[in-house]
Amino acid sequence: MNLQSQPGSGPSAYRILREADLRDYLASLPAIVAQLGGAPADWSISEVGDGNLNLVFIVKSGSGGLAVKQALPYVRLVGESWPLPLSRAHYEHMALVHQARLAPMLVPAVLHHDAPLALTAMELLEPHIIMRKGLIEATRYPRFVEDISTFLAQTLFFTSDLALSAAEKKQGIADFAGNHALCKITEDLIFTDPYRIAEQNRWTAPYLDAAAAAFREDLDLHVAISRLKLKFMVSPQALLHGDLHTGSIMVTDSETRVIDPEFAFYGPMGFDIGAVIGNLLMAYLASAGHERTEGERASFEVWLLETIEGVWGEFARKFLALWRSEANGDGYPPSLFTGEAGAARLEVERQAYMARLFQDGVGFAAAKTIRRILGLAHNIDFEWIADEKQRAICEARALKLARNMMLEAPSYTTIGAVTYAARELRHWQPDFAR
Amino acid sequence: MNLQSQPGSGPSAYRILREADLRDYLASLPAIVAQLGGAPADWSISEVGDGNLNLVFIVKSGSGGLAVKQALPYVRLVGESWPLPLSRAHYEHMALVHQARLAPMLVPAVLHHDAPLALTAMELLEPHIIMRKGLIEATRYPRFVEDISTFLAQTLFFTSDLALSAAEKKQGIADFAGNHALCKITEDLIFTDPYRIAEQNRWTAPYLDAAAAAFREDLDLHVAISRLKLKFMVSPQALLHGDLHTGSIMVTDSETRVIDPEFAFYGPMGFDIGAVIGNLLMAYLASAGHERTEGERASFEVWLLETIEGVWGEFARKFLALWRSEANGDGYPPSLFTGEAGAARLEVERQAYMARLFQDGVGFAAAKTIRRILGLAHNIDFEWIADEKQRAICEARALKLARNMMLEAPSYTTIGAVTYAARELRHWQPDFAR
Repeated sequence: MNLQSQPGSGPSAYRILREADLRDYLASLPAIVAQLGGAPADWSISEVGDGNLNLVFIVKSGSGGLAVKQALPYVRLVGESWPLPLSRAHYEHMALVHQARLAPMLVPAVLHHDAPLALTAMELLEPHIIMRKGLIEATRYPRFVEDISTFLAQTLFFTSDLALSAAEKKQGIADFAGNHALCKITEDLIFTDPYRIAEQNRWTAPYLDAAAAAFREDLDLHVAISRLKLKFMVSPQALLHGDLHTGSIMVTDSETRVIDPEFAFYGPMGFDIGAVIGNLLMAYLASAGHERTEGERASFEVWLLETIEGVWGEFARKFLALWRSEANGDGYPPSLFTGEAGAARLEVERQAYMARLFQDGVGFAAAKTIRRILGLAHNIDFEWIADEKQRAICEARALKLARNMMLEAPSYTTIGAVTYAARELRHWQPDFAR
Repeated sequence: MNLQSQPGSGPSAYRILREADLRDYLASLPAIVAQLGGAPADWSISEVGDGNLNLVFIVKSGSGGLAVKQALPYVRLVGESWPLPLSRAHYEHMALVHQARLAPMLVPAVLHHDAPLALTAMELLEPHIIMRKGLIEATRYPRFVEDISTFLAQTLFFTSDLALSAAEKKQGIADFAGNHALCKITEDLIFTDPYRIAEQNRWTAPYLDAAAAAFREDLDLHVAISRLKLKFMVSPQALLHGDLHTGSIMVTDSETRVIDPEFAFYGPMGFDIGAVIGNLLMAYLASAGHERTEGERASFEVWLLETIEGVWGEFARKFLALWRSEANGDGYPPSLFTGEAGAARLEVERQAYMARLFQDGVGFAAAKTIRRILGLAHNIDFEWIADEKQRAICEARALKLARNMMLEAPSYTTIGAVTYAARELRHWQPDFAR
């Protein structure tokens, strides 16, 4: 046993790092000193975390920089009253290493990991910005469809039963089983609280009071969200990022990086796919709230809808291509689909598999949308619309779309049906707006 | 670390036990000596294992007895060329302890477990016999429906997301993830080999040659079995027995004991349910082969069909009752189904859940049937029909039923539809019989 992993002893014993502590700690790591260059005393270090859970430091020397993320033993947004295990840094590190192998250049490079300190030092992403902020500014990202569809296809396919033996798959599931506290956050905040009275829920009052009440009383919706929750808990199809919204993606014109996989676990593929699609749908329906003059964002909005279609289309194309060429797992044994007829029948089944996956994605996209409007954690797509009534109008459109997607998922047979429904709601006016 | 768990050292280091070794070993255990009574030299010890995998010893003194099961490092039926991990004894012991708590008196009591020796000493079941043998003799078991439905309802419900928190559930899945070698046997022998050319396959030739070829070429069936295989690998709904055929059940007129859970893992509930139903359907369609005069087993066969209906009916009734009164898990949160309307809507969803479970059971029952006729491991229901043509006729009926159940599972909406289909085939004649 490594003594350094004993709490309270050794140089790496857990303690919350301040800037000065971090400087001393990093200065003790030769590889980091070499990477940064310059004298440790000259490094600039600042804590910049704006997420909900962790400390994030930017460290810069004259010639280089890095990002350091340290988990806190509680939820940063809430404080010590909501404890959260440090082990999430371990799972995040494991996921990052895995993703780097499967989707090179699409996640930040890990430079150093210290398990007892729950700390990871990573490549500094500069001049990347959080994609959500870019979308609010109507910035288009020409690489995004290509990159995110590669990330999804590679990470999901190669951790699925289509690529792994059942033994490898079970080992992977077991490796991430301990990350249950992070899964529990999702189970509560996405799949339960928005549909019941919960202290932490909030919404744009008074405009959405009636909608929030309706969601709390809609039993068909409660059955639908409960089925999705069960699917989330009991379908370890692949290693998920687990929190793949546009705030977990950093972008430039020419690069895309997926960050923050601390919610990683083996779950239903549709959850990651739905996270991307749902957050893009929210960006689309929030866009009207960021207009200064009517129609000024019209071509950006067209790009957003094309992007949504592209994410699914390219993901499906790449996933299917991998399935056709890299299917070394225990699922769908090739020996049962030999010859021309076998190949043709398997191809039909691949399409059917993708259709089932798409249904899951539609449902989860809806769940991710609803939680951002009626639950605890909102997003700036809507929050940065200063006019509360205008914000509520945009949110009401998203709620209407999401409710329909969740209840009628099987009727959305193509991604075009989803973007069509979103476009139809772009100018819809809720009762309170009339 | 316990030195006794090091291979090759200490008193419990693994070695294959002979009768004499076992006597010395048991004589060194005070609790066992007290349990058995008498002088160790006077104990009678005989190896009686007739299963496919392990050694089984019966140890008797003048006043008592016990059964000792030791795992071999290979498949007994095949020999050292097919290695199999000793760890299965660990998983079997964990499952037995779990089942004893959930279904008291329905599994053999564990008296002693030695992990390094891969050995478990258990209550001697006497005068119990293997149920499959009793069914061949047309013996009815009045306790069976009551007991097996209790076993299924209790073990499946209380290890599901309806009863456990998501964290407890993930821990359970991880605890059994290492039993993948036993799962792999199922994945290969049940879900793959019978549908392709495999050296170990056998069937009653020449009568079933055409049927075996048809099963190897039926691509719709290959899709159906592949979907079931994927469900088996990726649906950890509950802790399964994993091998719940009528050879894993010991019975008397008044008692039922489920034995041999070494295939235990978290999987789809329908797999255990389908195992029981499928094996009873085989007993039913094998029954004609054990007639000496036509119709002499008619009332036994009626009892068998009633038993099949009773197994599902009572299981569903008990499972639903547990769900209504003991639902402390994270699935279907009660707070989403409050008031009279909520309770009514949840009850509708419970019925829908059971319908989905039944579909799974129908599919898995079919898979369990087909593997016993076209795969490696056959069962004595059919094997003990000495007249090969008569045996093949019975097997052909079972294959026809199973094929239809697998391809048309959704059309079997009730257990009555299953027993009706079986009854319709009871006198059906395949081409080769005409």
